[in-house]
Amino acid sequence: MLTVVKIGGNIIDDKMKLDCFIADFCKLEGQKILVHGGGMIATELGVRLDIQPNYIEGRRVTDRQTLDLVTMVYAGLLNKNIVAALQAYDCNAIGLTGADANIITSVKRPVETVDYGYVGDITPKGVNNAQVKQFLDIGLVPVIASLTHDGKGNLLNTNADTIAKELAIAMAKLTNVQLIYCFEKNGVLLNAGDDTTVISRITIHDFEKLKSEGVISGGMIPKVSDSCDAAKAGVKRVVIGNAAHLNNIIFGKSGTEIL
Amino acid sequence: MLTVVKIGGNIIDDKMKLDCFIADFCKLEGQKILVHGGGMIATELGVRLDIQPNYIEGRRVTDRQTLDLVTMVYAGLLNKNIVAALQAYDCNAIGLTGADANIITSVKRPVETVDYGYVGDITPKGVNNAQVKQFLDIGLVPVIASLTHDGKGNLLNTNADTIAKELAIAMAKLTNVQLIYCFEKNGVLLNAGDDTTVISRITIHDFEKLKSEGVISGGMIPKVSDSCDAAKAGVKRVVIGNAAHLNNIIFGKSGTEIL
Repeated sequence: MLTVVKIGGNIIDDKMKLDCFIADFCKLEGQKILVHGGGMIATELGVRLDIQPNYIEGRRVTDRQTLDLVTMVYAGLLNKNIVAALQAYDCNAIGLTGADANIITSVKRPVETVDYGYVGDITPKGVNNAQVKQFLDIGLVPVIASLTHDGKGNLLNTNADTIAKELAIAMAKLTNVQLIYCFEKNGVLLNAGDDTTVISRITIHDFEKLKSEGVISGGMIPKVSDSCDAAKAGVKRVVIGNAAHLNNIIFGKSGTEIL
Repeated sequence: MLTVVKIGGNIIDDKMKLDCFIADFCKLEGQKILVHGGGMIATELGVRLDIQPNYIEGRRVTDRQTLDLVTMVYAGLLNKNIVAALQAYDCNAIGLTGADANIITSVKRPVETVDYGYVGDITPKGVNNAQVKQFLDIGLVPVIASLTHDGKGNLLNTNADTIAKELAIAMAKLTNVQLIYCFEKNGVLLNAGDDTTVISRITIHDFEKLKSEGVISGGMIPKVSDSCDAAKAGVKRVVIGNAAHLNNIIFGKSGTEIL
């Protein structure tokens, strides 16, 4: 079973959480891939560099300066430090973006009402699963920063949850895959403020109901939606859970499983 | 023949020069590796972030802030944009630091009179030539940023010329290697200010003489010294030349060959 784990900004921003997660990730058996986004570090660096966040209709726009910023922070500072930390545990990590070995191709999001700038939507055959499999088969552990490329020389900013989903779906055509979305909460919660109210299983049918009832709202909607997409597209197991409980998530003792 | 090409800051800082170089590099036949350092971009970003360059006895010290800065710029911004540009020419580039796939291990330079900070000296068996060969053999073109790691979780800043030399020497144990140092001049010059006075061949013996006569001085000394080390250690061909003349260098029509 190939395990694809995604971690978000809340873990990356907290050195102690990240160190614990890395130690746990190293212990995972079998082939594995880590996908990460950025965190507050990019935002803080942007402030120090006086790069003004650019919002159109409430959506963050990736202008040239912001693209350079996330390339530095995601693909440089964060990715390489995670790789070095994994290597210290004899986990043979290799840090990649979608451009490296051409593993993930995307197209710049078409301008409709909003021009999102340098944002890439992964193309239908955008994940080069044969190349990723080759890395896994020679014993490497890909650590993928949330940047893709258009094959025309341009890097593009791509949502890390989406990368994890598309990667899991593409790899599921070659092997059994489990996809684990790690974040700072214990899973999908019945009461958003109460971490003890984890819903241990959600079906795709439940998702629509919970969404209409407002139980799943805000940032959880795309995360659960990505999970449902993956489950529908052949990923054997999809779980949303707390990065601090990775081991328990793997053994079905923590998190929300999407069925 | 494996070709290891090193480019420096003067090419990286000039977008037009870099674009031309990339187009030429793509045309090189056979297996190849690109090694790059940084340029003024890191220095300028340091100024914008108010990171004061720290010099002890005229030597730049890599403190934590500077290490983070070069990790962002070399391994992130520069490395990934070079990779994306190469991919646009169907050159299957993969951007790496020494930490990635554990390809180059170093030790933090011991503190004698000066503590250079996070600077790594490549260990005798520091280049994992088997892993690099595996990448080449599956058709990848490694693009290596001048950072290594100590295997204990720390990235270390390492001179790009040294990385190119050590890599060429280690790969020479497995295959025929040529090492090309590209910079902004036409080669080793008899008169430093006159680019038409290229010395087309230098033996290791000549180097000592030219050095004592002051013909080779300043920053050229370590470059020619690295070249001599490589030639002595089994690298078949070592040339120092102008990045704009890569094709001519390969065919022996430009640059200074170290014999």
